[in-house]
Amino acid sequence: MIKTKPYILVTNDDGISAPGINALVQELNKIAEVVVVAPESEKSAVGHAITLSDPIRVSCYKKGKQWTGFAVSGTPADCVKIAVGALLERRPDMVVSGINLGSNAGINVIYSGTVSAATEGTILGIPSIAVSLTTYTDPDFRTAARFAVKMVRLVLEKGLPDRTLLNINVPNLPEDEIQGTRITRQGMANFAEEFDKRVDPRNRVYYWMDGQKVDIKADDDVDDEAIKNGFISITPIKYDLTNYDFIQSLNNWIPEIEAG
Amino acid sequence: MIKTKPYILVTNDDGISAPGINALVQELNKIAEVVVVAPESEKSAVGHAITLSDPIRVSCYKKGKQWTGFAVSGTPADCVKIAVGALLERRPDMVVSGINLGSNAGINVIYSGTVSAATEGTILGIPSIAVSLTTYTDPDFRTAARFAVKMVRLVLEKGLPDRTLLNINVPNLPEDEIQGTRITRQGMANFAEEFDKRVDPRNRVYYWMDGQKVDIKADDDVDDEAIKNGFISITPIKYDLTNYDFIQSLNNWIPEIEAG
Repeated sequence: MIKTKPYILVTNDDGISAPGINALVQELNKIAEVVVVAPESEKSAVGHAITLSDPIRVSCYKKGKQWTGFAVSGTPADCVKIAVGALLERRPDMVVSGINLGSNAGINVIYSGTVSAATEGTILGIPSIAVSLTTYTDPDFRTAARFAVKMVRLVLEKGLPDRTLLNINVPNLPEDEIQGTRITRQGMANFAEEFDKRVDPRNRVYYWMDGQKVDIKADDDVDDEAIKNGFISITPIKYDLTNYDFIQSLNNWIPEIEAG
Repeated sequence: MIKTKPYILVTNDDGISAPGINALVQELNKIAEVVVVAPESEKSAVGHAITLSDPIRVSCYKKGKQWTGFAVSGTPADCVKIAVGALLERRPDMVVSGINLGSNAGINVIYSGTVSAATEGTILGIPSIAVSLTTYTDPDFRTAARFAVKMVRLVLEKGLPDRTLLNINVPNLPEDEIQGTRITRQGMANFAEEFDKRVDPRNRVYYWMDGQKVDIKADDDVDDEAIKNGFISITPIKYDLTNYDFIQSLNNWIPEIEAG
C-alpha cells in the first residue's frame, strides 16, 4: 500500500529566514511534504492582525539548497490565508506555526503572531499547532523540532476538536533533561510594563515599551509553571472568546438596560 | 455629598479623528471626565498587536474647541498600555473603546483592534467595554453613543467579573427602531476570502485580500443574528483562550506522547 505523505503548511512570526522555522522544516521534511509560507521579516507581537488596507506581495525564498518557500509581505495570519486562498495547489493536511524564539505561554498567547497563524489554520478547518521555544538566549531548536514532528503525527492520527488548536511550548533543554509533557491551561500572569521616555535629536519625545511577565507561583497545570519546571506544555486553545459563565448574570441586567 | 465624576479612558481603532470617537466623547462628557488616547491614524484589523520594535510617539490632538486628546503612533492596545503606564495622572475608572465603524461581532472579534483595546483595559484590571456600529454606510452614531453611556453607568454600578469585558454591537437604527437588547455569544460564521491578484506597473505581482462573512442562519443568542434582527448585542468576552473541555481528552494522549 502506498501511503502518501501528509502535506503540511509551515509558517511563523519570526520571519522566513529565522533559525526556528528552518529547524522545523528540516525535521518535518522527514515525514511530510512541507510548504513554507511565512512573513518576509519579523512580525512578533502582531496579534491576529490581517492586512486589508495594503497590497500583499509574495516572493520566492530559497534556504540554500535545502528548501524553498514563499515570503509574504504581511502578517502570520495573512500568510495562512493567502497560502490556502491563493498560493497552494491543494489544501494542507495541517498547519504548523513556529518554532518561535521565545515563550508563547500565558498572557503572551493573545499577542502572539505564532498562535494567530495556527488560529487562522483552525478557522479554515485545518488541524493546526503552534510551537515555541521558551528562551531568547542560546536557542537549540532540536528538541522542539522533534517534539513538533511527534505532535504532527498524533494530530494527524487523532484529529482535533472543531475550532481548537494546540499551543505547544518547549523548554530550551536537551531531550533527556525534559521532565515530561503537561496538558496545561493558559496562565494569567500579567506583564509589568514600563515606558522608557526619551527625547530624539530633534527634541521630540518618544517612548519604548518594555515589560516583564510578573513571576507568580501558579498551579502545576498552568503553562508558565509547567515550562518553569522543565516540562513541555500543551494548551488547547479555542477562538470562541465568549464568557459563557457570565451570560446568565448579564441577562439579569436586561430590565435595567431596557428601562432606559 | 459631592460625587466625583467617573474618569474614563476612551480609545478606538479607527483613529482619533474618526467620527465615531467624537460621538462617544461628546456623549460621555455629559456624565464623566473623559480622556482620549487613540491611534493617530486608522488601525483596523490590527488584532491585539503591540509595538515593541519601534518607538511610540505621542502628540496632542485638538477636536476644535470641544475636546483634546493624545494621538499615539501605535495600535489600540498600545494606546491603553501607554495611557495607563505613562500618560494619565491617575488610573481610569473605565476604558471605553469605539465607537467603531463596522461590526465587531462573530469571527471579527479576533481581528478587532476595538475589542483588543478593551481587552487591554481588562488585563490592566479596569472595567472595559467595546462599542461598534454595525454598518459601513450612512453611519449615525447617536443611538450607539447613548447606549454606550447607559452601559458605562451600569458597569460602574455593577462591575464586571475578572478578565471579562463587554463587546457591544449596535445596529445603525434610530433608538425607536431598535428591537431590544440581547445578551449573546460570539458567532462562528467564517469569512469567504478572496485574493485579487494584480500586476503593478513594474510587472510585479501583488494581492488584495477581500472577503465577506458567510451569512449562515444562527441561533437567536448569536451576536451576528441578534444584530441582523435589529437588536443591540452584548457579548461577554474573556481572554482565557483555554479549551477546558478538551483538556481531559488531551491528557489521554500523554502516554503516547511520552512513549517517544
